[in-house]
Amino acid sequence: MTKSALIQEIKNKKSFLCVGLDPDINKIPSSFLALDNPILAFNKAIIDATKAYAVAYKLNIAFYEALGPIGWETLEETRAYIPEECFTIADAKRGDIGNTAAMYAKTFFETYPFDSVTVAPYMGKDSVSPFLDFKNKWTILLGLTSNVGSQDFQLLATENGPLYQQVLKTASTWGSTENLMYVIGATQGELLKEIRTIIPDHFLLIPGVGAQGGTVKEVAEATLNDDYGILINVSRGIIYAGQGEDFASQVTKAAEKFHGEMQEFFE
Amino acid sequence: MTKSALIQEIKNKKSFLCVGLDPDINKIPSSFLALDNPILAFNKAIIDATKAYAVAYKLNIAFYEALGPIGWETLEETRAYIPEECFTIADAKRGDIGNTAAMYAKTFFETYPFDSVTVAPYMGKDSVSPFLDFKNKWTILLGLTSNVGSQDFQLLATENGPLYQQVLKTASTWGSTENLMYVIGATQGELLKEIRTIIPDHFLLIPGVGAQGGTVKEVAEATLNDDYGILINVSRGIIYAGQGEDFASQVTKAAEKFHGEMQEFFE
Repeated sequence: MTKSALIQEIKNKKSFLCVGLDPDINKIPSSFLALDNPILAFNKAIIDATKAYAVAYKLNIAFYEALGPIGWETLEETRAYIPEECFTIADAKRGDIGNTAAMYAKTFFETYPFDSVTVAPYMGKDSVSPFLDFKNKWTILLGLTSNVGSQDFQLLATENGPLYQQVLKTASTWGSTENLMYVIGATQGELLKEIRTIIPDHFLLIPGVGAQGGTVKEVAEATLNDDYGILINVSRGIIYAGQGEDFASQVTKAAEKFHGEMQEFFE
Repeated sequence: MTKSALIQEIKNKKSFLCVGLDPDINKIPSSFLALDNPILAFNKAIIDATKAYAVAYKLNIAFYEALGPIGWETLEETRAYIPEECFTIADAKRGDIGNTAAMYAKTFFETYPFDSVTVAPYMGKDSVSPFLDFKNKWTILLGLTSNVGSQDFQLLATENGPLYQQVLKTASTWGSTENLMYVIGATQGELLKEIRTIIPDHFLLIPGVGAQGGTVKEVAEATLNDDYGILINVSRGIIYAGQGEDFASQVTKAAEKFHGEMQEFFE
């Protein structure tokens, strides 16, 4: 998907909401368990219940991979079920040397044709470039994450500021605002504005709103740019919003709530 | 596998050779292409041809994942074909927050029961600990890699020395020499001795010998400890050593050569 198509979708739906499909068999409504492929049926129900409000869907690859081959079929069928106008993210956090990175890129851009894949920066340029080589595909590089462990290395002081800032600066010379985004955690409140001074024009994928504590308002005020420039991801806060017979309407309500909080930014 | 069982296998075979199974359909001998599952047949032939000399096998997950569901079946059947006394490595370089890391650990320790998995450090302790929680399983953390891009961030000066040294020091407080190893590239010649002063007792998984330029002698002299403490991985230098009818004997010869270079360290 091109940048302009993504921006158009954000305008059409007045939304920068991304729904995270991290389906856990122990958490989905019990009514799905009798079905042939409970996870796939659950994912389809979530997509149906949220597609009026979501511009993107992020599939957390770990949750599919752990199921063995059936998980990869579920991954592909889920991806294919996502409306064509929505942006699709393979949240795989891959990172390896050149020829291996090229195989990973092939996996998530061709075997399973996602619009984007998340990538880890530790191994440097030749582990990221093979992803950037794909036309109209996006690399979403880990910048500053929302977990406690982000403090172990990402915030470490280097000769040029904290490590994550060095990652943002260096990587921004590898790709453009048309093929490179960054993962920036919503829980890093005070740092969001600072990050926007370093990479004003790149799209950011922002997890950590909802279950992990950040709010839409706080995040949007600190990070929106002229292209909107952000996708706020909510996983558990939406997909596990309901359990009983009214499961789907509870999920819709949760998505609607996050969408509602975004409306003040579409004037 | 326990540390003592690994050391015993090293002594039995007088070898610290790991063979990397990175099977590329475009590089395997054409005689395999007519078979039902060429990659699986190739892997089995490689294992048969090298098992007298190898104490470990490393499966590069990207090469299986890119094939779709059949790739995961091939991964499992290959793993199951590896002799029980050999140490198995899922070279996946995963790294994600807590509940996701736990799913990845489940994938490579339970769904596909490998002895170890490679993990990326960028997201910090809570992205690594879920792997360390598994009994008699190993986490192999990226330390200093053998690719050009290792210079982008791993060698960046921090308040406490280069980033990779910080990773070695910090992570060594998370696990023990019984469940934590590090990936250290053989191409980082002059740094190998320095690394041994920081982590004298941990096992190191050392890629970059052969096609990438390091030599067994140089690496072993700088890194062997009282437990041997290293696994030298060779992928392309062994698995693509032959193409014609004598493919298998060429592969055996290549493994035998590396094994031969190790004999002076078993006196």
